[in-house]
Amino acid sequence: RTDSDRLWEALMEMAKLGATPKGGVNRQALTDLERQGRDLFIQWCRAEGCTIRIDNIGNIFARREGSDPNAKAVMAGSHLDSQPTGGKYDGCFGVLSGLEVIRTLNQHNITTQSPIEVVAWTNEEGCRFPPCMMGSGVFTGELEFDAMMARTAADGVTVSDALDAIHYRGSDNVSPDEIKAYFEPHIEQGPILEDTDTTIGVVIGGLGQKWFDLTLTGLEAHAGPTPMNLRRDAMMGAAEVTQALNRIAFDHQPHGRGTVGCMTLHPGSRNVIPGQVKMTLDMRHWEPEALETMGQAVTAAVEEICQRHGLEYHLEPTANFAPEYFDKACVDAVRQSAKQLELSHMDIISGAGHDAMFVGRVAPAAMIFIPCKDGISHNEIESATPEHVHAGCNVLLHAMLNAAGV
Amino acid sequence: RTDSDRLWEALMEMAKLGATPKGGVNRQALTDLERQGRDLFIQWCRAEGCTIRIDNIGNIFARREGSDPNAKAVMAGSHLDSQPTGGKYDGCFGVLSGLEVIRTLNQHNITTQSPIEVVAWTNEEGCRFPPCMMGSGVFTGELEFDAMMARTAADGVTVSDALDAIHYRGSDNVSPDEIKAYFEPHIEQGPILEDTDTTIGVVIGGLGQKWFDLTLTGLEAHAGPTPMNLRRDAMMGAAEVTQALNRIAFDHQPHGRGTVGCMTLHPGSRNVIPGQVKMTLDMRHWEPEALETMGQAVTAAVEEICQRHGLEYHLEPTANFAPEYFDKACVDAVRQSAKQLELSHMDIISGAGHDAMFVGRVAPAAMIFIPCKDGISHNEIESATPEHVHAGCNVLLHAMLNAAGV
Ligand SMILES: NC(=O)NCCC(=O)O
Ligand SMILES: NC(=O)NCCC(=O)O
Repeated sequence: RTDSDRLWEALMEMAKLGATPKGGVNRQALTDLERQGRDLFIQWCRAEGCTIRIDNIGNIFARREGSDPNAKAVMAGSHLDSQPTGGKYDGCFGVLSGLEVIRTLNQHNITTQSPIEVVAWTNEEGCRFPPCMMGSGVFTGELEFDAMMARTAADGVTVSDALDAIHYRGSDNVSPDEIKAYFEPHIEQGPILEDTDTTIGVVIGGLGQKWFDLTLTGLEAHAGPTPMNLRRDAMMGAAEVTQALNRIAFDHQPHGRGTVGCMTLHPGSRNVIPGQVKMTLDMRHWEPEALETMGQAVTAAVEEICQRHGLEYHLEPTANFAPEYFDKACVDAVRQSAKQLELSHMDIISGAGHDAMFVGRVAPAAMIFIPCKDGISHNEIESATPEHVHAGCNVLLHAMLNAAGV
Repeated sequence: RTDSDRLWEALMEMAKLGATPKGGVNRQALTDLERQGRDLFIQWCRAEGCTIRIDNIGNIFARREGSDPNAKAVMAGSHLDSQPTGGKYDGCFGVLSGLEVIRTLNQHNITTQSPIEVVAWTNEEGCRFPPCMMGSGVFTGELEFDAMMARTAADGVTVSDALDAIHYRGSDNVSPDEIKAYFEPHIEQGPILEDTDTTIGVVIGGLGQKWFDLTLTGLEAHAGPTPMNLRRDAMMGAAEVTQALNRIAFDHQPHGRGTVGCMTLHPGSRNVIPGQVKMTLDMRHWEPEALETMGQAVTAAVEEICQRHGLEYHLEPTANFAPEYFDKACVDAVRQSAKQLELSHMDIISGAGHDAMFVGRVAPAAMIFIPCKDGISHNEIESATPEHVHAGCNVLLHAMLNAAGV
C-alpha cells in the first residue's frame, strides 16, 4: 500500500505554486511558475535516486532502474501545467501518484524486474498554446515537432521561446519503444463516478477532439444610425455559430460535446457594431464518423451563417484527434487491481483528452479515474478526497507491479 | 461664407492627436490625448479673443460677446472625444465649425447682437465611461452630477479621477437659461444622405436609447467530460440573448436598433465552459412606447433564457434616454439656411445620440447633418468631403446669424 499522507502532502505542496485566492491553481504551461513545479518534481525524484531525462519538447522522465537491464519500462505519468483557473488535482494527481509509487518501492526495498518511470508531459492543457497534449503528441509522433515549436500564445510568444525561457528544452532521446505499459491516474473531471458512488473508473478510452479558431469579419459601424438590414455585424454571426455548435453537439448525444470557450470582439465598444469576432470551437465525440459529421456540420453552418450576414471568415483547425480505445490488457490490469483492492469500479469513457490517449497509439496504455466533487474540473473549486486519491494511487501501484514483475 | 481651407486645416490638425495607423483617431474621453485636444481648442479660441469657461463636468464654453449685453447666447458645439477606433469628423466637425464661424465673424469684423458661443461637451461617446452625452446630460440636468462622477471605466478609473488627472474639473457656472438657440453640425454617421445624394440633413430629432450591462453567471467546467444536458454554460445564454436582442430590433423596424458591442468570457479558455459572460446591450427607437416595449421584451428574454440554461443574471441599466424631437423654429432655421445657400437638403432622424438631444430639452436646438462616406462612422475609415464639410459650416453660419441678429 502507498502512503496516503505522503501523497496528499506532495499534492498540497505542489498546489502552492500558482495558488489562486479561490483555492485553485494558475500554473500554465511553460510559465515561470510551471518551471518551479518542474524543478520541485525533479528535486523530489532525485531524492529517490531516480535518473532524469528531458526531451526536446520538455517532457521530463524520472527513472528507477529494474533488475532486468533489457526490460522495457513500466511508466506512469500525467502533467504539471494547469488551466488559468484550474484546480489542484488535474494532472498533478497522476504525476505525484507515480512519484508515490517510487517512494513506496524505495521504502519497502522492492526491486522490480522492469524499470519504473514517471513522466511529466509538457503542455497537456493546451489553453496557452493549442493543441492540448502537446508533449505526449510530439513524443509519440502524433504532432510534428517543428510545427509545435512555432505555435504561439495569445501574446505572441512561441512554444520554442517559452521552452528556452524556462530552460527546459532537453536533448535526451526517449523512444516510445522503451515503454512496456503506461498507466495514467487522473480525476474524472465529470460527474459519473460521483453520481454512481464509484471509487475507480476503469477508463476504456477517450473522446476524439476537433478544435478550431474562427475569425468572423464584418464591418464595424455606428450602433445608432446603421439600420438593422444594412449591418454586417460579426457578433450576430458569432452568436449563431455558438448556437449551431451547441445544436450539433445536442444532435449527437450521448457522446457529442460542443463548447465556445473564448470570444473577442473588435473594437469592443458598446455603441459600435463589432467588425470582427475571434472565437474558439471545441467539438468531441466517441465515434470517428460522428466526429467527422460534427466537423462538417459546423463548417457548413459557419459558411451559411456568414453568407447570410455578409461576413467573411477564416476557420483554422488547431487540433484534430481521433477517439482512442485503450489496450485491452492494460485496461484489464486496472480492473483487476481495483477488484483485488476491493474498490468499487466501473468502465468509463474519458471526455477530456489525456496524454495516455497519445501514448496508447504507440504502446499499451490505460487510465485510472477517481471521482472529483460535483464532477467539476477546469475550475478553482475542483476537489477530490484523500480517500479517493489514495485508492487511485493504490490501483496504480498494483497495476504497475503486475506489469513490471517483482 | 466661411473659409473652407481654414476649417479643413483645423480638422486635420486636431486629427493628429490620437491618430491611428488606419487614418482614424483614438482620443477617448478624459485621456491625456483628449486633454491635448481640449488645450488646442482653447488656444485657438483665445487667439480669436474668446473668453473661456469650464464647468464642473469639464464642458468648455468659448464666448464671443455680442452688442446686446442682455441677449442670450447663440451656441454651436459638439465634442472632441472619440471612439477607440473612431474617425476624424465625429464630434470635431461640430466644434471646429463653431470655431470657424467665430473666425469668419472676426475676419469680416461682424458684430452680432447676441453673443456667439462654442461648446465642447465632455464624454459624448460614452464608450470609456457610460452613458454617452455625459457632459451635456449633466449640464442640462438630465444626468445627475454625483452619479456621473462615480461612473467607472473598465480599468476602474472614475470620471472624477480622470477629470482631475487632466485638470479639467472647472468651477464656472454656466446655465441652460443663457442659451437662445443651439445648433450642432455633425456627420450623419449613416447611409441616407449619401444614398439620396443630398448635401444637408435637416435633423428633426433623434432615437431614444436604452443601454444595459448584462452579467450571466453559470458554472465553469471542463469542455470534455461535462455532458451537454448538465451544463450551465454562460456563453450559450449570451448567444441566445444576442439573438433575442437582434430579433426584437428587427421586429421594430424601421426605427428599432439592437447591438451587442462588448462581450467578455470568463475564464476565457478554449476547453473550459464559460462560467461567466459580461456583455453590453444597446437598444434604440424613435417612439417612446416602442422603446419601452423593446426594453421589456429584452428583459423578459434574458429572464427566460437564464431560467432555461440554469444561469443567474444581473441586468443593469447604464443609459435610458427618451427620443428627442427638436424645436420647430430651430429646425426651420436650418432648412431655410440650406435653401438660401441652394444646397440640396432633406429632413432626417438621427440614429446616434447627440448633445443637441439633451440641450433640446432645456433650450431651442437643432442639428445639421452632412454625408459621410458609405455611411460609416465609429470606424477609422470614417470620411467626409471638404465640400460637404464646407456646406455644413455655411449652413451653421447662416442659421446662427439669423438667430443672433447682426
Ligand atoms: N484532462 C484535461 O484537462 N485535458 C485538457 C485537454 C482537454 O481539453 O481535454
Ligand atoms: N454621435 C455619436 O457618435 N454619439 C455617440 C453616442 C451614441 O452611441 O449614439
